[in-house]
Amino acid sequence: MKIRSLRERGLVSALRQEFRGSWGGVFVGIGDDAAVVRKARGRGLLTTDLLIEDVHFKTAIHPPFLLGRKALNVNLSDIAAMGGRPLFALLGLGLRSGVGKRWVEEFCVGFKKALAEAGVALVGGDISAAKKICLAVTIFGESEHVVLRSGARPGDLIFVSGRLGEAAAGWRLLRKGYRLGTSKRLDPLLKAFLDPRPQIALGRVLARRRLASAMIDTSDGLSVDLHHLCEESGTGAVVELAALPISPLLRRIENNPFALALHGGEDYQLLFAAPAANRSKIMRLAPKFGLTEIGRVVKGKRIQIIDGRGRKKLLPIKGYEHFAS
Amino acid sequence: MKIRSLRERGLVSALRQEFRGSWGGVFVGIGDDAAVVRKARGRGLLTTDLLIEDVHFKTAIHPPFLLGRKALNVNLSDIAAMGGRPLFALLGLGLRSGVGKRWVEEFCVGFKKALAEAGVALVGGDISAAKKICLAVTIFGESEHVVLRSGARPGDLIFVSGRLGEAAAGWRLLRKGYRLGTSKRLDPLLKAFLDPRPQIALGRVLARRRLASAMIDTSDGLSVDLHHLCEESGTGAVVELAALPISPLLRRIENNPFALALHGGEDYQLLFAAPAANRSKIMRLAPKFGLTEIGRVVKGKRIQIIDGRGRKKLLPIKGYEHFAS
Repeated sequence: MKIRSLRERGLVSALRQEFRGSWGGVFVGIGDDAAVVRKARGRGLLTTDLLIEDVHFKTAIHPPFLLGRKALNVNLSDIAAMGGRPLFALLGLGLRSGVGKRWVEEFCVGFKKALAEAGVALVGGDISAAKKICLAVTIFGESEHVVLRSGARPGDLIFVSGRLGEAAAGWRLLRKGYRLGTSKRLDPLLKAFLDPRPQIALGRVLARRRLASAMIDTSDGLSVDLHHLCEESGTGAVVELAALPISPLLRRIENNPFALALHGGEDYQLLFAAPAANRSKIMRLAPKFGLTEIGRVVKGKRIQIIDGRGRKKLLPIKGYEHFAS
Repeated sequence: MKIRSLRERGLVSALRQEFRGSWGGVFVGIGDDAAVVRKARGRGLLTTDLLIEDVHFKTAIHPPFLLGRKALNVNLSDIAAMGGRPLFALLGLGLRSGVGKRWVEEFCVGFKKALAEAGVALVGGDISAAKKICLAVTIFGESEHVVLRSGARPGDLIFVSGRLGEAAAGWRLLRKGYRLGTSKRLDPLLKAFLDPRPQIALGRVLARRRLASAMIDTSDGLSVDLHHLCEESGTGAVVELAALPISPLLRRIENNPFALALHGGEDYQLLFAAPAANRSKIMRLAPKFGLTEIGRVVKGKRIQIIDGRGRKKLLPIKGYEHFAS
């Protein structure tokens, strides 16, 4: 895309041009007071996220194309965690002085790429001046059967998709000055942080086939997210440390990969509980979606972890080392 | 409401508590990965706005209660301009250090008041640290018959609700140091800026009874908003200066009240076109909604203004004197 001016009116019309297109279900897109869209099939889903410069990202670290893609994808991850299908997006864009046309163009190209990948239409937004870049993304989606955080029952098994701790390890490397291409071997970790992908297809199959009893995405880290799931379900959990999906690469480069796997955030994988009776059906999905059984739901309120020697201890709840503070 | 801590988790649970409630059509509100809501009746409407500190408001000028109410109401105004019914809201809240619990509490009370006034449920949101306060509000609404900006036809009449230029005059006074209560006589102008009310009922009756052919809210000022409406409709317009609804108060305190009426923004009134055949039906609504006929839609692209002596000239398109720049 080509942006001629960053003044609000010029930018709005450039974005309108860029994101125009004929999308199923969009009767009126960008350009009126509100977008007009088709009604949801099943129930409607709504989620919003703020991404703020120097709190959630740094322009010196995050290439704008990847940031654009991530800004949409972290929101799509919330829809995935409900088992939903994302339909329409809105983008609030606060831009500070010093952000050039090129940055905005690349950001928009990345955002548009993520829209295309998910089949989602941008239907509206707002542009403003700001002191720090501010990205406010809202998604409207739909689902005929939603999977909440609150449906886990004692006896359910706990699964997670993908690998844990990758994004947190990537963030550590980025802070040390590594960039994509610095070391091809380490790029997967950097990408996990810079360019996470929402697990929409997995969420949908789990919801449609009624396989999961409760689900959440791992945005804050396993310990925090499992805590949320258990708290909402009124249950405890037992997690097997040895079962956590930790990549050989993470094991090689981190002294304590378990800490990152347990407490690192930003992986945007799905963490879900499922009745034990569904285990074999779920394991048939494992090769496609990279699923790992990591523990089980129990009565009570405690989340315990079983270490390599079979000892149980309470799982401390720690947030991801947040880079703003 | 009472907020104990501004740390994210504490604040989220305080807000969740405060905005909980049983709302028609909300199956899952704040607290899961996404809200689950009923489908729209008719078509869905989506709109979002960013309000950023020192761009759209100043904490030294805007009392937090009124800012909370305005943050929702300016978004509701976009739904009103479509002839829609607002249903659900999402709030992204970026808070900087130095913003105290009291400020957040009062902001939330104001936001909640506006929700209650419009019968809208807050179903989700996000909280973040920020350098400047950042408010990202999204509304989902519905309408069986939407009124777009693009439906005006030559021969249609042009109407506006309320009075023009009040908010801009209020903003001028606020910048000069006036506050609510400084002068009771001037309070209506200050309130027009600090506490605008969305014209939802008017928008709905115009849509439901198919009275308006095109509609927009006057957020940027009559000249800019009429330009948008005409541009989308592919028409021109003629506006009678003498017909503009300017309050006696505005005439008394401003040397050039017409400039404010034409180019002042933030009034959040409705500007609409309607076939001449609907004039009498619309005038029957005038006492209730304060409607004024101000001109007519014509062929071409020009927007002309007829001054008090019957002379026509082009209407310059000027934005509201934006306070960030």
